[in-house]
Amino acid sequence: MTGGAAVSRRTDSVPLFAHRAEEFRPSPVRAVFEIALQPGMISLAGGNPDMSALPHQVVADMAARILAERGPEVLQYGSGAGIGRLPELIVELMGLEGAEVAPDRIQITAGSQAGLDLVTKLYCDPGDVVVAEGPTYVGALGVFGSYEVDVEHVDVDDDGLDPEAVAERIDGLRAAGRTVKFVYTVPNFSNPTGVTTPEERRRRLVDVCAERGVLVLEDDPYGLLGFDRAHRLPSLYSLAPDTVIHLGSFSKIFSPGLRVGWIAAAPAVRARLQIAAEAVTIHPSVLSQELAAAYVASEHWRPSLDRAVALYRSRCAAMMEALETHMPEGVRWTRPAGGFFTWLELGPWTGGGDLLRRAVDHGVVLVPGGACYADGRATTSLRLAYSATPEAEIAEGVRRVGEMLRG
Amino acid sequence: MTGGAAVSRRTDSVPLFAHRAEEFRPSPVRAVFEIALQPGMISLAGGNPDMSALPHQVVADMAARILAERGPEVLQYGSGAGIGRLPELIVELMGLEGAEVAPDRIQITAGSQAGLDLVTKLYCDPGDVVVAEGPTYVGALGVFGSYEVDVEHVDVDDDGLDPEAVAERIDGLRAAGRTVKFVYTVPNFSNPTGVTTPEERRRRLVDVCAERGVLVLEDDPYGLLGFDRAHRLPSLYSLAPDTVIHLGSFSKIFSPGLRVGWIAAAPAVRARLQIAAEAVTIHPSVLSQELAAAYVASEHWRPSLDRAVALYRSRCAAMMEALETHMPEGVRWTRPAGGFFTWLELGPWTGGGDLLRRAVDHGVVLVPGGACYADGRATTSLRLAYSATPEAEIAEGVRRVGEMLRG
Repeated sequence: MTGGAAVSRRTDSVPLFAHRAEEFRPSPVRAVFEIALQPGMISLAGGNPDMSALPHQVVADMAARILAERGPEVLQYGSGAGIGRLPELIVELMGLEGAEVAPDRIQITAGSQAGLDLVTKLYCDPGDVVVAEGPTYVGALGVFGSYEVDVEHVDVDDDGLDPEAVAERIDGLRAAGRTVKFVYTVPNFSNPTGVTTPEERRRRLVDVCAERGVLVLEDDPYGLLGFDRAHRLPSLYSLAPDTVIHLGSFSKIFSPGLRVGWIAAAPAVRARLQIAAEAVTIHPSVLSQELAAAYVASEHWRPSLDRAVALYRSRCAAMMEALETHMPEGVRWTRPAGGFFTWLELGPWTGGGDLLRRAVDHGVVLVPGGACYADGRATTSLRLAYSATPEAEIAEGVRRVGEMLRG
Repeated sequence: MTGGAAVSRRTDSVPLFAHRAEEFRPSPVRAVFEIALQPGMISLAGGNPDMSALPHQVVADMAARILAERGPEVLQYGSGAGIGRLPELIVELMGLEGAEVAPDRIQITAGSQAGLDLVTKLYCDPGDVVVAEGPTYVGALGVFGSYEVDVEHVDVDDDGLDPEAVAERIDGLRAAGRTVKFVYTVPNFSNPTGVTTPEERRRRLVDVCAERGVLVLEDDPYGLLGFDRAHRLPSLYSLAPDTVIHLGSFSKIFSPGLRVGWIAAAPAVRARLQIAAEAVTIHPSVLSQELAAAYVASEHWRPSLDRAVALYRSRCAAMMEALETHMPEGVRWTRPAGGFFTWLELGPWTGGGDLLRRAVDHGVVLVPGGACYADGRATTSLRLAYSATPEAEIAEGVRRVGEMLRG
């Protein structure tokens, strides 16, 4: 891939691609996947969970037991709704963020990316509008693009989305004749900014959307990764279960490689999402579902998640310290209370040229902020991940970022 | 689900669904999934592989070894192109059907259903036409519907698609101003008819399509399930690798529950499919890919596949015998040389009412033929699967079908 080049819609002998193919662009996060593997390179790019806190032999034994005892069932086609025991477990997980949800509202998906795809597919015609945080999750932009949806950003502050700004934007778009389908938000330790929306704003956000007949699509992979477990906020879904669709994931609390996530939605919507999901991939891997269910229901899960969160907390602190030490005057960054990311506004230090290429020249990989906006605005910001990088490398990586910024 | 009812596009407080949602209908095959579990019911409906030929303890040990030795890598995010060793293995599998394919033409997918979804997503705008066998795979109709594609059937005979009829249909559609994107076909032991397209027709089919700048989408999950391994035909892809896109799957040669398949396509197309795939689900389960690769590359695979094919051959013979015994005069059926299915044309015996409901009343589940046509034509046919049903039950199930037809 040479990335970002215009799509040629005709060749000599094969048909045109669909119109939507013009919106298929490589994810800038996925594009740096290979670069990050170069020797000596420090990656502060990918939002990978740390896998070292998992008891890998325990997981291996669980998989072996599942396959030895129930192989003919686990290797066979499964139900499009997901394996039987998983919805009950997810109900428990969602309860940790204050939601009371009936199991028949849970649709299992092949990761929450697939949930995002399915909800967009169900609701959005080409030209419809989704209101999203500015900046927002780069993978969501890939989905919205693939359905030819127009993304309107409402800029976040250190408390996430301002509900009044969202309301005003929806009203303005409607006055201009546009159709707004939903507001997409990552309220906990957001990707890419790391900021969290406080409870008051949550309540107001679901209200202003419900009043306007606009859904809220809550993407919540990081909700259980707060550094202070005593201060967990209610999910948007818990506040308005009939006008919020919730995306959950096992990727950050257990394993992303297995690709298991879920959607919580009103039963009639869930049923339609299942039909749409079956047309895409029939069902997620049964073995993945079984293993996620077995592990997260076991006595191993909570301690390993606690170990992982303790790691993220230390690494976040190490990154904050390194930023204090190495950033030039005028750079601002967010102070996450959980999750994987911090977001830097570079102020006067934007420099020239391609931010990613300059960073790679200095031996560090990061996500340029422009990638997190649908309108490709000029990069005056960047995302740094601390989740999967040892503390010493974080310090050195941030030093390199500072060096790069000073030119 | 109440199935098939018109989609209400408005509720009081939430936004309209997308226009495409009107095409989301429950798969009639998936809909009978639950019915088939009722006590005493004999299922001749689902196209499930038989899992009894697999050495389940061996598979369990492989999974355990993969996770114990490389857990941090296997449970982590993987590459959107698939795990490294899988393309080479797929090249070998495709070689068994005569294709010489470079590994960079292989895109791993979460099952070949996902491949079908991605190819349709890449090529088809709403209102575009796909030419498909009549009858065709019911799951393909779900995909085409979800992209608002119009399906034009070319009826098959006992040798599959007639290339001249395909050419004529394409020309006619073009003359009427329609845009034909590809011809969708299952050339080996087709789902749902069980028929196989002979080599001469294969050569002619790829030619008439290439001459007209129309792709062929070859869906080939059953290619290695011929009852006579000595008479394997060349894949359409092997005959025209630049104008055929090939869908392959581990579902019928190892495990459908794992959801691992692939697309073989020209490199520039493959690269776009990867971008589209990453937006849908990032990548298929890494554990599923690793396990499929380890098992199919092992010495266990070929013997277990041979055992499974021997089972299918015996079951097919049992079904043919039972049909001879129990079908009333005037019913015709296909005689498969491999795969999972036979197709019955009921002639004068269509009876009245809902064919599936009548069958269930007689204690047998099947797929009514109408489900395999996009235009919902009246059911004068049905699909029977013999792949996952013991011989004694096949005989009794077919007896019940005969009883049902006679009323």
